Amino acid sequence: MKVLVVGANGQIGKHLVSFIQDTDNLEAKAMIRKQEQASFFEDLGAETAIVDLEGGIDTIANAAEGVDAIVFTAGSGPHTGKDKTIMIDLDGAVKTIEAAKAAGVKRFIMISSFDTTREAIQGAPSSFAPYVAAKHYADEWLKRTDLDYTIIHPGALTNDEGKGQVKAAVEVDRGEVPREDVARVIVAALENDSTVGKEFQLVTGTTPVKDAIDSI
Amino acid sequence: MKVLVVGANGQIGKHLVSFIQDTDNLEAKAMIRKQEQASFFEDLGAETAIVDLEGGIDTIANAAEGVDAIVFTAGSGPHTGKDKTIMIDLDGAVKTIEAAKAAGVKRFIMISSFDTTREAIQGAPSSFAPYVAAKHYADEWLKRTDLDYTIIHPGALTNDEGKGQVKAAVEVDRGEVPREDVARVIVAALENDSTVGKEFQLVTGTTPVKDAIDSI
Repeated sequence: MKVLVVGANGQIGKHLVSFIQDTDNLEAKAMIRKQEQASFFEDLGAETAIVDLEGGIDTIANAAEGVDAIVFTAGSGPHTGKDKTIMIDLDGAVKTIEAAKAAGVKRFIMISSFDTTREAIQGAPSSFAPYVAAKHYADEWLKRTDLDYTIIHPGALTNDEGKGQVKAAVEVDRGEVPREDVARVIVAALENDSTVGKEFQLVTGTTPVKDAIDSI
Repeated sequence: MKVLVVGANGQIGKHLVSFIQDTDNLEAKAMIRKQEQASFFEDLGAETAIVDLEGGIDTIANAAEGVDAIVFTAGSGPHTGKDKTIMIDLDGAVKTIEAAKAAGVKRFIMISSFDTTREAIQGAPSSFAPYVAAKHYADEWLKRTDLDYTIIHPGALTNDEGKGQVKAAVEVDRGEVPREDVARVIVAALENDSTVGKEFQLVTGTTPVKDAIDSI
């Protein structure tokens, strides 16, 4: 099963490609923006595709040709200019979803934000609300497709070493989660089709990743 | 027929409320953000509702209670901060659409941008693309409802005096259009149900407004 990782050069993305390459049954194709980012992934034995997420759907669809699943983990982050919030977090995500449809890729895993509900938009501080809104509309777009989606809503991301133990459910108490453990959860979701059509929040916890995802 | 004008205090909005009040069969309810904006509309004999578009859907739905149509002509404009582009042009529009559904108002007229297609997003200068994207997603949201919508795509807006003559069709050559004539076109669309389920571009022209809209 070949997995296109969109946003591979991000912090979650790098962990993810590495974990995928460690499995027996999955292989990664790293979608990156610049040629100079390629060597990291080539060293892991992963294929790469150089694509600008601000370009057209067709270039993303070309990269998606022949893969079995797409993970969207690109992000402008909540603190970039709000132009990138629209163009990457919303429009880049939607274009990737449309590219999946165009390339005939059914499985799609979206890395969202912890809470992207209408209530979360209204409750967010004004500096953060545009990011929540962008993620909300990307998630909504995905849910209105017939793709086999899973939407993961991680808590506050940290660079702490992952411990391989999490708490995952439709709603969990707000908390932190290491990016490394988010990547482990993505792999577990790719390997468990019972996560199709579901979304869940994710924080650090005490349940081994595979068990936590099996119980979703 | 009572018409809630969202963004009434904008330049199109003020012309629109004035024209609506001049008709025999329509009456305007001006949705505005601040109490001190109310006197302009009260002097026209129009009802007002003080609502912050960045608030919840319920407050917009309250303002929409009992009206027969909603016109969305609010806009952060293409040159405000991109946070407002998300929160007003996209999220404010979507909340107004959801408020229409909640209040049982079927007729909805959206004032969009000249070209909000996928191609227009990709072709726009980077400073303008986020605005085009925001309007694109608002239009898409509306088209996926079962509201009786009309989407108007005006060309470059000017403050020139309107001449009551326009060119309107699914596609027209790019051009300018006075805000006053956009307001006339909205009234004509409100008075012509054959515009339901349609969208059209609009520039200044040589056809009287009513005839131009009757031929849509």
